[in-house]
Amino acid sequence: MNLLLLEEADFIAADRVILRDRRLTHMQEVHRSQVGDSLRVGKIGGLMGSAELLRLDTTEAELRVTLDQPPPNKLPLTMVLALPRPKMLRRVFQTVAAMGVPRIVLVNSYRVEKSFWQTPFLEPDAIREQLILGLEQARDTVLPQIIIEKRFKPFVEDRLPAITEGTLGLVGHPGNYPPCPRGLDQPVTLAIGPEGGWIPYEIDLLAKSGLQPVQLGDRILRVETAVTALLARLF
Amino acid sequence: MNLLLLEEADFIAADRVILRDRRLTHMQEVHRSQVGDSLRVGKIGGLMGSAELLRLDTTEAELRVTLDQPPPNKLPLTMVLALPRPKMLRRVFQTVAAMGVPRIVLVNSYRVEKSFWQTPFLEPDAIREQLILGLEQARDTVLPQIIIEKRFKPFVEDRLPAITEGTLGLVGHPGNYPPCPRGLDQPVTLAIGPEGGWIPYEIDLLAKSGLQPVQLGDRILRVETAVTALLARLF
Repeated sequence: MNLLLLEEADFIAADRVILRDRRLTHMQEVHRSQVGDSLRVGKIGGLMGSAELLRLDTTEAELRVTLDQPPPNKLPLTMVLALPRPKMLRRVFQTVAAMGVPRIVLVNSYRVEKSFWQTPFLEPDAIREQLILGLEQARDTVLPQIIIEKRFKPFVEDRLPAITEGTLGLVGHPGNYPPCPRGLDQPVTLAIGPEGGWIPYEIDLLAKSGLQPVQLGDRILRVETAVTALLARLF
Repeated sequence: MNLLLLEEADFIAADRVILRDRRLTHMQEVHRSQVGDSLRVGKIGGLMGSAELLRLDTTEAELRVTLDQPPPNKLPLTMVLALPRPKMLRRVFQTVAAMGVPRIVLVNSYRVEKSFWQTPFLEPDAIREQLILGLEQARDTVLPQIIIEKRFKPFVEDRLPAITEGTLGLVGHPGNYPPCPRGLDQPVTLAIGPEGGWIPYEIDLLAKSGLQPVQLGDRILRVETAVTALLARLF
C-alpha cells in the first residue's frame, strides 16, 4: 500500500477522516504509524495529497487531510480481455488498475470455460476490492471502468466498432503477424485472448471491427504477463 | 503447460520416454490425451519437437519422441534482482523463465527483509520447479542460471563490473531519471530493486559499477509487474 485511499464515507469534515478497517490495521502493523506522522493519501475518484495522523488507538485513526495533487494520467486505452480463469482474473484487475488502464471490457471467447463466468470475483464488490489494491500499489485514485460482455458476437459486431473508432485497433495473437508497435502516443483499442488464444473465427470478427493482429514473439505468456508486456511495449 | 519437458532420466531409449509424475496427471486430466495423440515436447537443456503417445494407463505413459527444433532465443540480458518476498519470488522465477532471461543474480538490499533469505523457495529444487513451470508455459527448454549473492557490496564492487562490461548497464529506479530505453538489440545488465526501492547508497554503488538509473513513470509497480514491463520495453 503506497497510497492510503479514502472513501467519501470516511470524511467527518472537509479535512478530517476516521479510519477503522484494514487501513487502520495496515497503518498499525505495516507502517507502524505514530501520531504526528505524515502519510500519502488520495480520495477515490479525486485528488491525492498527504495526511497527518492526529489520533490512533486500537479501534480507529483520525487524520487531517490535504488533497492538492492530481492523480497520474491514465493510458489512452480500452482493453478488451477474454475472461481469464478466476485466480488470474483477480491479479489482472490489480495489474490493470496499477498500470493505468481506464477501461476494460471482459468478453467471452470460445476458449473461456463457461464456469469462469460463475466466479464470485466478478461481483462488483470483489472487482472493486482488487482494483483498489492496484490503485494503492501504483498511487492512483481513479477506478477503471469494468464492462462485462458475456456474448462475444453481439459485442464485437454491434458495440466494438464505436469503441475502436478513432483509435489504433490491435489484437495480441501469436503467429505470422506484424510485431506489436512500440511507444505510441495515440489512443489504442487492444484485445487480449484467453489461455490457448482466440480461434480463427474470433480473429476474423475482431479484424472486421477494426482490430489488427500483432504478435509478441514465439513465447506463450500467461495472461497477466501478456497484459503487462503489451502495455509496457505500447506506451 | 504448453510444452511437456522431458528429463534425461525419463528416457528408456534414444526416442522413448516413460512418464509417471505430475506430467502423467496433466496429460490425463488437462489434455485428456489418448493413445496416438501427438504432443509438443522438449528435452531440458536441449531440442524441442513432438511425441506420439504409444501407451497410457493409470500409472504411466510411454511416448515416442522426435526432437528436431531449437528452443527460442534467450534475451541478451543479465538481471540483478533484489530478493523479493517469498510468494513474489516464486512467481518471478516463473516469469523470468517464461520471458527468456538467461541469468538472474539475486542480491541483498537494505530494504530486503532478512527473513526472506530463509525461505524454502530458495532451495535448488524449489527454484528449479518454478523455472520449469515458466519454461513449460513459454515453450523453452533451457533453464535460466540463478546466482545467489547475499552480500550487496562485495557483489556490486567486485563481481558486477565484469558482468556489466560490454553491456548497457541499467537500474530501474523511480525519480528524475531518463526513461527506460526501448527496443534494444545490444546486451543489457538490468538491476531491479526491492519493494520500496534501492536506497541512495545502493544507487550510487550500482552507478559506479556501470548501471545508470532509468525510470518507468510515476506508477509504483509490484516487482513481478516491473520485471515484465522492463523486459517488454527493453527488447
